[in-house]
Order: sequence, then structure tokens, then C-alpha cells
Amino acid sequence: MQMPAPDQTILARKARIVARLRSVLPKDAVIDDEAETRAYECDALTAYRCPPLAAVLPSSTEEVAAVLKVCHDEGVPVVPRGAGTSLAGGAMPTADSIILGVARMNEVLETDYENRFIRVQTGRTNLSVSGAVEEDGFFYAPDPSSQLACAIAGNIAMNSGGAHCLKYGVTTNNLLGVTMVMMDGEIVEIGGAHLDAGGLDLLGLICGSEGQLGVVTEATLRILHKPEGARPVLMGFDSNEVAGECVSDIIKAGILPVAIEFMDRPCIRATEAFAGAGYPDCEALLIVEVEGSEEEIDAQLARIMAIARRHNPVELRESGSPEESAKIWLGRKSAFGAMGQINDYMCLDGTIPVSQLPYVLRRIGEMSKDYGLDVGNVFHAGDGNMHPLILFDANKPGDLERCEAFGADILKLCVEVGGCLTGEHGVGIEKRDLMVDQYAPEDLEMQMAVKDVFDPKWLLNPAKVFPLASSEARRMAAE
Amino acid sequence: MQMPAPDQTILARKARIVARLRSVLPKDAVIDDEAETRAYECDALTAYRCPPLAAVLPSSTEEVAAVLKVCHDEGVPVVPRGAGTSLAGGAMPTADSIILGVARMNEVLETDYENRFIRVQTGRTNLSVSGAVEEDGFFYAPDPSSQLACAIAGNIAMNSGGAHCLKYGVTTNNLLGVTMVMMDGEIVEIGGAHLDAGGLDLLGLICGSEGQLGVVTEATLRILHKPEGARPVLMGFDSNEVAGECVSDIIKAGILPVAIEFMDRPCIRATEAFAGAGYPDCEALLIVEVEGSEEEIDAQLARIMAIARRHNPVELRESGSPEESAKIWLGRKSAFGAMGQINDYMCLDGTIPVSQLPYVLRRIGEMSKDYGLDVGNVFHAGDGNMHPLILFDANKPGDLERCEAFGADILKLCVEVGGCLTGEHGVGIEKRDLMVDQYAPEDLEMQMAVKDVFDPKWLLNPAKVFPLASSEARRMAAE
Repeated sequence: MQMPAPDQTILARKARIVARLRSVLPKDAVIDDEAETRAYECDALTAYRCPPLAAVLPSSTEEVAAVLKVCHDEGVPVVPRGAGTSLAGGAMPTADSIILGVARMNEVLETDYENRFIRVQTGRTNLSVSGAVEEDGFFYAPDPSSQLACAIAGNIAMNSGGAHCLKYGVTTNNLLGVTMVMMDGEIVEIGGAHLDAGGLDLLGLICGSEGQLGVVTEATLRILHKPEGARPVLMGFDSNEVAGECVSDIIKAGILPVAIEFMDRPCIRATEAFAGAGYPDCEALLIVEVEGSEEEIDAQLARIMAIARRHNPVELRESGSPEESAKIWLGRKSAFGAMGQINDYMCLDGTIPVSQLPYVLRRIGEMSKDYGLDVGNVFHAGDGNMHPLILFDANKPGDLERCEAFGADILKLCVEVGGCLTGEHGVGIEKRDLMVDQYAPEDLEMQMAVKDVFDPKWLLNPAKVFPLASSEARRMAAE
Repeated sequence: MQMPAPDQTILARKARIVARLRSVLPKDAVIDDEAETRAYECDALTAYRCPPLAAVLPSSTEEVAAVLKVCHDEGVPVVPRGAGTSLAGGAMPTADSIILGVARMNEVLETDYENRFIRVQTGRTNLSVSGAVEEDGFFYAPDPSSQLACAIAGNIAMNSGGAHCLKYGVTTNNLLGVTMVMMDGEIVEIGGAHLDAGGLDLLGLICGSEGQLGVVTEATLRILHKPEGARPVLMGFDSNEVAGECVSDIIKAGILPVAIEFMDRPCIRATEAFAGAGYPDCEALLIVEVEGSEEEIDAQLARIMAIARRHNPVELRESGSPEESAKIWLGRKSAFGAMGQINDYMCLDGTIPVSQLPYVLRRIGEMSKDYGLDVGNVFHAGDGNMHPLILFDANKPGDLERCEAFGADILKLCVEVGGCLTGEHGVGIEKRDLMVDQYAPEDLEMQMAVKDVFDPKWLLNPAKVFPLASSEARRMAAE
């Protein structure tokens, strides 16, 4: 008898796995056709691509459990995927893995205004969570720029923030409980419709764990009553440093606006050309928004404008109408798209202590000259979450590599000044090998030992978060 | 040769351990005299007592590391202790354990107003953290009633809240980073002066872990700018249910006062006799406080008073001066002491969804009749954190046992209505065996597996948090 060729073995294995998945899911929920699986070969970090073995689209927690049981049994890695908007490659497949997409799981399961929560399936998009309660005057606070598309599953995985998280906190501050399926198919409930946890706070651990510990299928989210009103003010300055100092002074004065957004000249220009938001032509722009009753807004903005005036703004304009406010925000929210119109770019995500803003912006400017690549800055300045966009030409040989090296240097700078190499996009594949710049070997070992508990075979979302050599070694040791 | 009697072996072992501890600590930092170790035989849950093998009082992270290395080596359990104010037996020793007190570690290490944080040794008391920054207009938000005495170490261990956590969150929302010593003596840094964490959020896991994972020796805490002003309003109602409904309506309206405190008749009477705070003689009392500028306070209180009026209050009085405000708060803050003057009591701590307040208060009233034991209720109503005080007579045989059974029933009720058996006091020894009412076996197993990672020998804070049989089995298996 002849041994089958290796690719025959692989094909036979794939056929067996797909057949087993088909036996536990509706027919149209298993995708193994090569052309169709290509739709899952990457997320929003499109520079990296690899089609998965197959993709599944379950509709319930029980179906997710059934899928994971099969994969656990067969030793198949599983890549959970929300809406695929990760900018860090958080949902990127490996060739031997199954993509587990939660897009069909988008139901609202329960709404409770008295206790201020909503329970949803995690495939639901961020914006449609607010959409489900807005007629009754409520909203869900975390608002990533991708909120129209991104799923709650990914928000939980990456602990997403957004423009308004300065006041309302990020996902972890607005998540009350989850239903999670472990890699072996066991379904667990963590947290609930109350604060605090008895024993260890596993909910805090799971939020931001990038699909390394389990697949979160349902979430109980804190909803808030909509404020009476909100009003932004637009400030223009003639240098990044001065704008940074203004942010620092507002925070130091103990004022807590809902949002402080920052844009530098390259972003202002691109955005203005794209969205016509009426931004002034200057070096740096801040959008500072406050909320409350008319009187509260007036009182807070008066203090903020007084601080801004001390920094000689070239523009200082309070929004005069809801239409003007919407226009101001439209500019900010379309900044990434506007930059994408004119350039290839890589969007970074790091966090720094707010006081370091002027220094870090200056250093990024210097590095930009050294690397010969332009940078646009547009980010949540109030909480020190930076998003430098490095501009490059994908068709120019060597440009991507220089861009990656420049990006790594910026993130190392964030760590150096006492910050962190992620903000709200996560580590994913993008920053896995930079983790050694943030953490000592024993700190990483501790994180990986916690992963061991939840996923002893290292099958969940492979090749991400931890340095590649470490996670590969771990997975091989577990085989 | 004769075998030594068992107690000789124990004495020799104790002598060896004490000698080794003396070799790594200053002379006066090791306490082994039996009369002196009695000072550490219990915490504020005084019904349970057991003197430790010895107590140590290190002054630095390095000394803590040296102590833990010795204990790890000798297989000696270690009970970390802040100020010993735990109401759940969180710092209670076992006979074979060393008490590791952090009381001497009370330095301020760094103050940074620009980035709004303070770094302290964790033996520092809660109130003296605010004390270190108040001249400059800042404060540390979590404010447990025991804040004059309790240490930051215990606040982190129990994820403590306080009257003002409705607005500012509990410890986990105000903790930026820690220095922690692992059981084997290794020193790790987790978090820092920035939001978010790359990789797994171990900081969130450590906060509230009740000394099960490591000994936290230094903490970076978020400090906030003091609000311009604050003003409480006192509301009296003629039933607990109506007061509960008023709380529910304030929250539902989307107003976020700094604090909503609740007291029922037994507490009102005892407190009034003790502190003369000018409380009305009624069934239930609310203290609702708001903050901000004079205009902001006026606007918020107007809305709150309008809601209160719809519930036919028997008293509705806005504070007219800083002195009156201080008097109103003095009553609330001395409520536990006032109750202790006239009765033995057991103070419970559970959390419920706010909408369940009226129902839970009514059920507690009914159970009170069934058990023949009075209950006083005084608690943070805005976030559903209840503190029923069960009154009993310690000299009356059987009373303590009935009180414990009653307490367990109240906590089970909290879980039943969708709440949690802890709020801010932790599980400790008090609620370890009730954890099975909150968690399924597989959930508890997951928590214990995480503990395995940090403390594989199960030497840290023994016999707490997890059901006694489970943690004993775990420890024996590790030997």
C-alpha cells in the first residue's frame, strides 16, 4: 500500500474537520470553498494576509460551543473574529486555523433601563447597541471611530475606547458580564448585572485579552442616560507643542471634558479637503467637547476657553448650533479615511502620560525627518492615547519596511516615557515582538501561565499577543 | 535515640523560621513573643481569632521579598495584613502562618500633578493619601468608612469603594499600577502611570484578589482635582420601599450624584442619639450629594428634589452651609459606631441591581421577623452595595449562630436577584463557603487554576476566598 502524499494527508484532515463542523452547524454556516475563505484572509491590517483552513458562522452560544469542541478534539487552532476591523491583525488567520466569525450573533437579548444595562450577542455592532436604546434616551459610551462596523466582540477583545472615553472610560469600565465559551466547549458566565465580583476578577482579565482565553458570545453592557446637550469648541495653535501644553493644562486644572481630540497639520489638510469641516489652516487643532445642561456647558467652556487663550490660539471657536457641532465631529471621524484617500498609511496605537505629549510629538517629528517618512497625528489627547499615521508608498520598494521600523521606534518611545505600546487596538500580530520592550521575561511568563490555565493547548487565536517564538514554543510543548 | 515529642518538632521549626526571618530583617521587625503576636490574632471580624506563628513588619519591597523567600523555602503560609480593618476576616491568621504587616511601609514615593497620580507604599492609610495632596487641591477618590485607619494595601486587596464611588468608581477604577512581590520572592511591576495594558490585564485581576496572588507593596493611584463645592440634601420617607423607589428613579433619570446613602429607622435612631446630626425621626433616610460649581449644584439638586417630591417625603432639606453639610455626613460616617454602642452586630456586604432595592429591603424585613433578630440598614444605595447590620446579643447562647444563618440567607438573596455576595469587604473567611451559591464548580475551578499560576504551593493568605474544603485540598495536593 502506498502512503498518501503529504498534501493528501492535509486535504484528508481538512475534509474530516469540515465534515465534523458541518455535522454540528447549519449547512450555510461552514465555509470551506477557497474563493470564499479568502474573504477572511485578513482584517483591517491588510498588509498581512493568509487564508484560513475554513470559516464558520455560528448563530448561538451553543453552536460556538459545538465548534470549539470539534476543534479542541482535532487540535485545530481557532481565530475568533468580530467584524474584522482590527488594525493590529487581531483577527488574522493562520493557514491551519478555523475562523470563528460571530457576525450572525447580533441579537439584543435583554434591555433593563432601571438597572441601566443591555445584554447583547457579541456580533452586534457597537453603534447598533446605542441604536437599540437611543429612542428611550440611553446610549452605550465606548465609541471607537469604527463604531459603525466594529463588533462588541472585538471591543471586548481589545478593550476599545473612543473619543468619549476620557469621561466615560473604555470597554472594561462599561462591561458588566459575559458569557464565554472555553476552548474545550464549556460555557461559563462571568460577572453579571452588578458591580464587583466575589473572588478573582476574571471579567477584568478577560476584557482586553484578545481572544486568548475564550470566545465571548454574549455581553452585559452598562448603558447611560444621554446628557441634555453637548457642545464642542475648536482650537487652532501654531505648533504641536503648544497644543499639547494646552491639553496638559486643561487636565491639570481638573476639568474633565467628554473628549479632547488632537489633529496635526497633515491630518487637518487632508480632512479639510475630504470633508470640508471648516477647520482652520494651522499646525495643530484641538476639539474639546463638554456635556450637560446649557448652564453647565457654558460654565465649563468658559474655563476651558480661558485656558486656551493663555496659549495664543490662532482659532478659538465655540460651536454655535447642532449642525456646526456635527460638522466639527464629521471632520474628526473621517480623518483616517481622508488620509487613506491620499496615501498608504500605517496607523499606530500607543499610550503615554499626558504630560509627555509635547516631548513625544517633538521626537516623532524628528524621527519623521530621519526616516524620510511623513507622519500625521490624530488622536484622543485627553487620555494620552496616540494614533500616529505613518505615510508611505506601498509601491515603493523598502518603504513598508522603513515604515515598520519607524513605527516600532515610536512605540518604544511610548514605553520609554512611562507609557504603553497599546491603547485601544491591542497587540495582535503587529506588536507581538515588541512585548519584550514593555515587559520583563518574568512578567511575560506570568501572562503566558495565565493563558495556560484557560487554553492549555494554545489553540485560541494563535501567533498573537505574545512574542512569536514564545507562543510557538508553548504550543509545541503542549502538543 | 529518642524521637522528639511532636510539640518539640513544632517549636524547633518555629525557632528555625524565626531565626531565618531575623537574619533578613531588622531586629524589631520580627515578633514571635506569644503575648505580642496576640495583637494579630484577628482583624475587625473579631468573632474569629487565632494567633499566628509569628508576625513580621518589613519596611521596604526588598524586605518583603526576603520574607517571602524564606517562607516559600520553608513552606510557611503567609497572611498579608494592611491595617487589619477587614470585616470579612481577610487578614485573619492560621496557627501555622506568618502575619506580614505592611504598616511600616507608609511613605509617599512620588507625586505627579501633571499626570494626576501619586505613588505610595501600600501601608499608607487611605485618608493620608488624600492628605498628601489636598493642599494642592487634589484628592484620592475611594473613601471607605474606615478611611482614617484602613491601608491602601487592604483597599487594593478588597477593591474597596466608599460613599463617593457612585461617581468616582471603586479602587480598580483608580489604580494605575502596582509593585507586587510573588510568593517566591520575585518582584514584579504591573501597570504604570498610564491607562490600558499590553497583553493580559493582570492589574485588573490583582485588584480585589484578597492577597491570594502576591503581596502588593507599592501602588500608583489616580488623584483627582477637588470639585469647587459639594452639597448634600437630606430626605426622609415613611417606608424603606418608597426610599428605595426614589433612589431607583434618580438613577433612572440619568442623574449621577456623587453619593446616595441610605439609612433605615434603627440606624437613624441610634445615629441621632450618638451624633446628634439632626436627622428626622422617620422610617428611611437618604443623603444625596452633588458636586460642582454653585450653578451646577443648584441645577442638579433642583432635578433631584423634584423627583424626591413625587415620593411624598416627610423631610426634604438642602444643606444651607458647610457646617450643616459636615453635620449631615458626620451622622452617616458614625452610623456603624453608633450601632455598636447599643448592640453587638454583624455587618454584611452584598451587591444587588438597584431596581431590586425595594424588594430586597422588604424581604430582609420579613426574614428579620422569622429569625427574631433586628436589622439596621445603612449603605451606598446608588450603586446597590448593601450593608445590613444584624443585631444580636453575643452573651445569649445561640444568637451568633442564628445571626450567621440569617446573614447567609441575605447574601443568597443578593445572588438570587442577580447580585453578588460581596460589595467592598471581600470574601475573606466569612463568605468562603457561600462562594458555591455564586459560582458553578467550573467557574470556581477556573479561579483556583489562576491562583495556581501565581501561588502554586497555595501559601498566600490560606483558608480564604475559596470554599475551605477546596483550598485545603489544593494546598495538600501541592505539598
